[in-house]
Amino acid sequence: MSQKRFDAGVYASRLHAAAAAAADAGLAGLVITPGYDLRYLIGSRAETFERLTALVIPVSGEPTVVVPRLELASLRESAAVELALPVRDWVDGQDPYDLVLAALGGEPVATAVTDAMPALHLLPLTAKLGVLPVLATDVLRTLRMIKDPAEVDALRKAGAAIDRVHARVPEFLVPGRTEADVAADIGKAIVAEGHSAAAFIIVGSGPHGADPHHEVSDRELQDGDVVVVDIGGPYEPGYNSDSTRTYSLGEPSTEVAQQYSVLQRAQQAAVQAVRPGVTAEQVDAAARDVLAEAGLAEYFVHRTGHGIGLSVHEEPYIVAGNDLPLQPGMAFSVEPGIYFPGKWGARIEDIVIVTADGADPVNQRPHELMVVPLP
Amino acid sequence: MSQKRFDAGVYASRLHAAAAAAADAGLAGLVITPGYDLRYLIGSRAETFERLTALVIPVSGEPTVVVPRLELASLRESAAVELALPVRDWVDGQDPYDLVLAALGGEPVATAVTDAMPALHLLPLTAKLGVLPVLATDVLRTLRMIKDPAEVDALRKAGAAIDRVHARVPEFLVPGRTEADVAADIGKAIVAEGHSAAAFIIVGSGPHGADPHHEVSDRELQDGDVVVVDIGGPYEPGYNSDSTRTYSLGEPSTEVAQQYSVLQRAQQAAVQAVRPGVTAEQVDAAARDVLAEAGLAEYFVHRTGHGIGLSVHEEPYIVAGNDLPLQPGMAFSVEPGIYFPGKWGARIEDIVIVTADGADPVNQRPHELMVVPLP
Repeated sequence: MSQKRFDAGVYASRLHAAAAAAADAGLAGLVITPGYDLRYLIGSRAETFERLTALVIPVSGEPTVVVPRLELASLRESAAVELALPVRDWVDGQDPYDLVLAALGGEPVATAVTDAMPALHLLPLTAKLGVLPVLATDVLRTLRMIKDPAEVDALRKAGAAIDRVHARVPEFLVPGRTEADVAADIGKAIVAEGHSAAAFIIVGSGPHGADPHHEVSDRELQDGDVVVVDIGGPYEPGYNSDSTRTYSLGEPSTEVAQQYSVLQRAQQAAVQAVRPGVTAEQVDAAARDVLAEAGLAEYFVHRTGHGIGLSVHEEPYIVAGNDLPLQPGMAFSVEPGIYFPGKWGARIEDIVIVTADGADPVNQRPHELMVVPLP
Repeated sequence: MSQKRFDAGVYASRLHAAAAAAADAGLAGLVITPGYDLRYLIGSRAETFERLTALVIPVSGEPTVVVPRLELASLRESAAVELALPVRDWVDGQDPYDLVLAALGGEPVATAVTDAMPALHLLPLTAKLGVLPVLATDVLRTLRMIKDPAEVDALRKAGAAIDRVHARVPEFLVPGRTEADVAADIGKAIVAEGHSAAAFIIVGSGPHGADPHHEVSDRELQDGDVVVVDIGGPYEPGYNSDSTRTYSLGEPSTEVAQQYSVLQRAQQAAVQAVRPGVTAEQVDAAARDVLAEAGLAEYFVHRTGHGIGLSVHEEPYIVAGNDLPLQPGMAFSVEPGIYFPGKWGARIEDIVIVTADGADPVNQRPHELMVVPLP
């Protein structure tokens, strides 16, 4: 369980692709400070703030790491050593932005910087570069959205782990326990099943299930409650799980059963709509259309899904207005829900990978409303 | 223990002072996204990233909060509601940078932005402002360094809490236990004594005490070990403790006792040097001179101290080369140490507040080498 990053070859290929994307964008290179981009590109989890740590990727020439001498040890857990990246370390009193400029070729140049770069570094770097940078997201978007085989494998492992947690959820759902009690048990199970942490736990029981932003509360579970359980977390080397299932404490009413079955068809329709060339908004519409036909459109109050990887929410967003055509390797949630304010709610969520043949879900738990027998 | 922020009056006065400082710097205003500056100015712990949340402080006119509609609830825990700050909420599809510009007066203007503002927001904001901003640190430095009475009170409470932990440390220091075992007990005590978390725990036993960057290890404590214990954490509403004491498992050798007594005099000399008008580097020199007279200068390998508040390390830094004159209300550590590689080390650290009469320590534990009787 201690795999902190992929083999160096994975990162070598990403660095090459990033440099090519920067060249295509007419830039001299990329400057990446700690954050998800740095983790994606060299597997580094550095969190430095005041002193500049930066990966500099020129479009031609070798990527270089600029790092405070005090924090050289932080490179060990990244792929920088195995890749034999040149390292320019610096001490207090030196100007690290000069080192960045030199690694880019030495002239005022157009670059892209990672979204996470703080003003503390971006403002002095801009003064040194002589040109306002652009955002690296615009350069790295396609690369980050299309998961490589190592990432797909990591997402599958995370998905299998959260499936194991959902398999245990019914034992936690006992009338009289609070949502917070249940969430505590789920949090332990998330870690016990192999995640490095529980990133989010929603236990929305009864009327709380009707609020998609509800997390947990001291409400006690009651006989007959419908309970939305939306859970996930990072799994080494850092890819996230995210899966929602809905449970019924005892047999559901006919109305709940009927409306849930429409939701189940809506989720299935969206998954079946996924294939290369279909747009993100078409997948959203596929779920929405099924609900609309049954008169439930107004109860589905959020987008159908979000991309997932090192971060829980990233591109592509499966939402009306997003005409991005899907491509093999994209990974995102398909999670329509229905919410009846003051009464109950339900949501079904799987993460799927786009393949040439359509959607391949990483989650395998049944989609039916899971009836938990009353004691 | 649930005091999450100060009374609104504290923040009103800080907002007023921040606007005045921006005016003095010839700016049109400040733009503050989530981070320590936002917490300092309105008590908000928002952590939003992708969608812009910003406090806009024009030099004339009212401070305004720009916030995504989805995250309006996050304002409740800040002082924004009590202060009745105008709120400009926005939804996906709107341009929040237009709202920032409008709150500043509507023309391209020179502003300062918080150090933590990510490129994701700073680059589009800069395009909208038409002028590259400067760093807010340069405007807010004096304000942030000079603690107001509410902050001094918070630092004192944090100091008293960590003193209670140090009072319990001897019972944890049992030969045969590992540094990690001891750290686990200390971590629980830090929370039990009222901190909201343990931010850092150094247990440097025997030769490990000679490395000021050591944290903890599986080394087992031995009879005769000298043990450096440097601990602290945030205490609601978020001000940090930080205190170091050195312990001896059984009676120390004559050499250890003698060298420790020099360190104790050095720490005392630095504390006694503190008064308004004295520079930070003079305080550093006061400690260093005592050690130098005893031939121990080369064993004191770091600066004498750092400012403390909402963050553990902030200005003023008590270090050679810093000619900043001290002023009443500044808060910083005084923590000289001596480190004998491969053998042992010692450090004594108190947080002090600068008053008109000199240094007023928030920590009250004895400075002597604390001898822990062997079982």
